[in-house]
Amino acid sequence: MFFFFFFFGHRIVESVGEGVTEVQPGDHVIPCYQAECKECKFCRSGKTNLCGKVRAATGVGVMMSDRKSRFSINGTPIYHFMGTSTFSQYTVVHDVSVAKIDPVAPLEKVCLLGCGVPTGLGAVWNTAKVESGSIVAVFGLGTVGLAVAEGAKAAGASRIIGIDIDSKKFDVAKNFGVTEFVNPKDHEKPIQQVLVDLTDGGVDYSFECIGNVSVMRAALECCHKGWGTSVIVGVAASGQEISTRPFQLVTGRVWKGTAFGGFKSRSQVPWLVEKYMKKEIKVDEYITHNLTLGEINEAFDLMHEGGCLRCVLATHV
Amino acid sequence: MFFFFFFFGHRIVESVGEGVTEVQPGDHVIPCYQAECKECKFCRSGKTNLCGKVRAATGVGVMMSDRKSRFSINGTPIYHFMGTSTFSQYTVVHDVSVAKIDPVAPLEKVCLLGCGVPTGLGAVWNTAKVESGSIVAVFGLGTVGLAVAEGAKAAGASRIIGIDIDSKKFDVAKNFGVTEFVNPKDHEKPIQQVLVDLTDGGVDYSFECIGNVSVMRAALECCHKGWGTSVIVGVAASGQEISTRPFQLVTGRVWKGTAFGGFKSRSQVPWLVEKYMKKEIKVDEYITHNLTLGEINEAFDLMHEGGCLRCVLATHV
Repeated sequence: MFFFFFFFGHRIVESVGEGVTEVQPGDHVIPCYQAECKECKFCRSGKTNLCGKVRAATGVGVMMSDRKSRFSINGTPIYHFMGTSTFSQYTVVHDVSVAKIDPVAPLEKVCLLGCGVPTGLGAVWNTAKVESGSIVAVFGLGTVGLAVAEGAKAAGASRIIGIDIDSKKFDVAKNFGVTEFVNPKDHEKPIQQVLVDLTDGGVDYSFECIGNVSVMRAALECCHKGWGTSVIVGVAASGQEISTRPFQLVTGRVWKGTAFGGFKSRSQVPWLVEKYMKKEIKVDEYITHNLTLGEINEAFDLMHEGGCLRCVLATHV
Repeated sequence: MFFFFFFFGHRIVESVGEGVTEVQPGDHVIPCYQAECKECKFCRSGKTNLCGKVRAATGVGVMMSDRKSRFSINGTPIYHFMGTSTFSQYTVVHDVSVAKIDPVAPLEKVCLLGCGVPTGLGAVWNTAKVESGSIVAVFGLGTVGLAVAEGAKAAGASRIIGIDIDSKKFDVAKNFGVTEFVNPKDHEKPIQQVLVDLTDGGVDYSFECIGNVSVMRAALECCHKGWGTSVIVGVAASGQEISTRPFQLVTGRVWKGTAFGGFKSRSQVPWLVEKYMKKEIKVDEYITHNLTLGEINEAFDLMHEGGCLRCVLATHV
């Protein structure tokens, strides 16, 4: 198992371990929590991006080779996080967990292409495969939900209905492609019924971008009989369960989920960076704040307050 | 709304109502509980077989034109059932609810192509789209489950694992393509774990052919991470719900359902009859009993006892 260091905020390879061949010191990279080894049964399947090569180690915060952490403070080990450990000036990651990108791309922007933005775009393009003319519902208008809207607009959706309990989000959402806004608080009926009524039978595709199991149910049940497909994008709290009547599926609805939007990280993140450089996808528009690593707790406060889409941390702003 | 009569057991059109053009007296037909009008938004979608044209009437046992029944006994109305009302020497059905077939086909055999056999075959071919080499699990080895096995064998599945709490069913199931048998009663572990262990991570496709919501969950959860697809074929009791952890879907499993196997009834049942005539699909093998209409209650007893696959009723055997 091989690894290398890179400098936080600039994501530049500082050194590589024995046997690492695909990147070298000086390369610009984006660390990806979903690895891609190109060798395991998942990578070879052609059906999924969920590479399994280092999952057993990244799931518990260590490196695969010796099952140990590379970080410590005063002799006490600090564990890795999500296979990337990016809240640090230097980090150590597996070679299968970084995507080598065009060195001209601005790292303080394209760092967003390591998580939420591809998750939303890919949920539409790879997992749901939304067709031109479709009616789409997006539950939750944070970064991931807005990326779903952007992806749906690019796919030619005829209506993109944004659903959020904070009506202030609609103004921003319009810039990402949302054409209509529904606030469940404005209705007495269940939100799935509101959407079915609004769309003459239901939406073609829905996306849950919150992580709320009740909303996941509503997202499925607002889909059109016969073909409506709902994609779970949000991550629910541990132990929570989704449920519905099986008749919802027997009558043609499909329930799916997505992780990192189905994108194969090392193969496709460089392509997303290219699309950004050609101005085919947004990135800058998701960045509402820039802070330093020393201000990280303030960044978390901003996220919880809801006024922040993405806050990029750097050693110096 | 137009209709006609046909003689029970032989399914021959006796007369047609005003405006009926696609069938005429003497035609051989198979009545189909799932209509196909070829005009409504469902029929035109290309994505579903769930025609909506007469659903509002067949759902409550009347004809669409005047919302009345065509049957009575001593002046008391008897309602239609499932849009076909086939437990009768003569019946009245909507013109969109019958498939005109080759008059050479034996009606006392191909009558099975109006429900369970296409449901199982179509779940594999149309809904799941099982590929050659796939590992398939079938929960419940009644007629529908056996038709799933037959469909999976035709699709080139490499392993077809039958699951049933009645081990006696395995001998018959082998004839339909089942390659391995698992009885949940023989295991202490949950059946989904047994199957994951048996298949190095889970099956590619699973089919629930019982109507039990706990089994529906097991059928989803025995699917392989990344791509496993589970199809609900059985119909659960009213009010029951399915549930699982959303992580099952986020990690790539897909939950679907099917009704009449996704076959468009009037367009595709005649094609299934042709396949039977060319010996490409089984029908006779599902018929374990033949009784008369007067023995119908005995037929229900046989079904509940589990020793019967399909019992064909006729006025004379």
